[in-house]
Amino acid sequence: MRKNFRMLLCYDGTRYRGWQRLGSGENTIQAKLESVISKMLGAETAVIGSGRTDAGVHARGQVANFHADTDMTAAQVLAYLRRYLPEDIGILSVDEAPERFHSRLNAVKKTYEYRIRNDEAPCVFERKYVWRMAEPLDLAAMRKAASLLVGTHDFRAFSANKRTKKSTVRTLEEISIERVGSEVRLRFTADGFLYRMVRILTGTLVEIGTGKRAADSVLTAPERDSVVAPACGLCLMEVRYE
Amino acid sequence: MRKNFRMLLCYDGTRYRGWQRLGSGENTIQAKLESVISKMLGAETAVIGSGRTDAGVHARGQVANFHADTDMTAAQVLAYLRRYLPEDIGILSVDEAPERFHSRLNAVKKTYEYRIRNDEAPCVFERKYVWRMAEPLDLAAMRKAASLLVGTHDFRAFSANKRTKKSTVRTLEEISIERVGSEVRLRFTADGFLYRMVRILTGTLVEIGTGKRAADSVLTAPERDSVVAPACGLCLMEVRYE
Repeated sequence: MRKNFRMLLCYDGTRYRGWQRLGSGENTIQAKLESVISKMLGAETAVIGSGRTDAGVHARGQVANFHADTDMTAAQVLAYLRRYLPEDIGILSVDEAPERFHSRLNAVKKTYEYRIRNDEAPCVFERKYVWRMAEPLDLAAMRKAASLLVGTHDFRAFSANKRTKKSTVRTLEEISIERVGSEVRLRFTADGFLYRMVRILTGTLVEIGTGKRAADSVLTAPERDSVVAPACGLCLMEVRYE
Repeated sequence: MRKNFRMLLCYDGTRYRGWQRLGSGENTIQAKLESVISKMLGAETAVIGSGRTDAGVHARGQVANFHADTDMTAAQVLAYLRRYLPEDIGILSVDEAPERFHSRLNAVKKTYEYRIRNDEAPCVFERKYVWRMAEPLDLAAMRKAASLLVGTHDFRAFSANKRTKKSTVRTLEEISIERVGSEVRLRFTADGFLYRMVRILTGTLVEIGTGKRAADSVLTAPERDSVVAPACGLCLMEVRYE
């Protein structure tokens, strides 16, 4: 029976070259999933993700789907994947989606979180999930700049692929910047993000927070030189669908 | 000037063969500290820890000290160590202790925490710091057994070194067992612990929690076969001094 399985998954991206399969034998999340799922089904199977995440970027709420001719139930798929996937890829849930559901094309909104560990104290247990940055950050200036970024803008300056011919207009619905204990956490919600956009937004906001850039010039700030925050601090939190 | 520097430190024990230096070139926390400190001082320097932790065991509150003839201040030592130690060993603080202070001999109490991740959901980001155990645990039975363990007893049955000629009498001051979200956390406070004692106590309590052993036979339960909980779930939380 033809089924369309939808997965909610998390992963520690530290040892992967990102989400997207690059070639054969590449160490990516997608390739790892496809290898286990193809073995489970006895047939080469493509996995569709909501979008790519870069090398070293984590996810707590990635969505992916795959089609299969199988009698297996969602619960059986879940049990199989939990058994055979490595422990840095975790399947939170599996369900059967409508035949036409497509993880990437149907996604309407995504939320990313960027974690900065903002003091000099050691950070032994969280070290792979934060950007360590001891310099004090002026959150008021960062929030002012963030308020200018929210809305529908051409974010070409915040893409690592500035020469693309596709539209670089996106709608940034919300940026929140909160201090949580020793961390500063930035959350970005948008209808979509350009290549490295969250890391460039974060890098630019941090330059504003340390006084290296003025908050009111944020929209044009990284025109010439993109400041890219390190991958390890970034995590895909949620993908929303209609 | 002769000084006695006391350090409060944390470490992720995952890639180490435990606290104690074994020989030359061994990958242990103590050897790593001694190598960096000896380089800092230009003299071979021994580091005294409050006690050993096994291979793979973590610490959030280990205490250690070393003697040095130096003009360096505690703040300078802290800055040097933070700069040159690997990122899985973190120095929380350094101060100058009285000349006679000895991390091991003066310790009067220690607290360890053992974390069990007690559900079937994936545990991607905490996987190196918990024992995954999906089977339901009867906390009431575990607490009943724990109440029998508290007090002054001969804990020889709970040591991995049962043939020692030294006293195996210890005073277990407190055992707390709490459910925190998806985790069950056990905390043990005693005047000292025998070799692998916390992991054997935990393994035995888990057997009681899953109904494999009776709570009221806990004190003699592991006489013949010691159930040793895995190292990764264990963390030295605090060492107290008079």
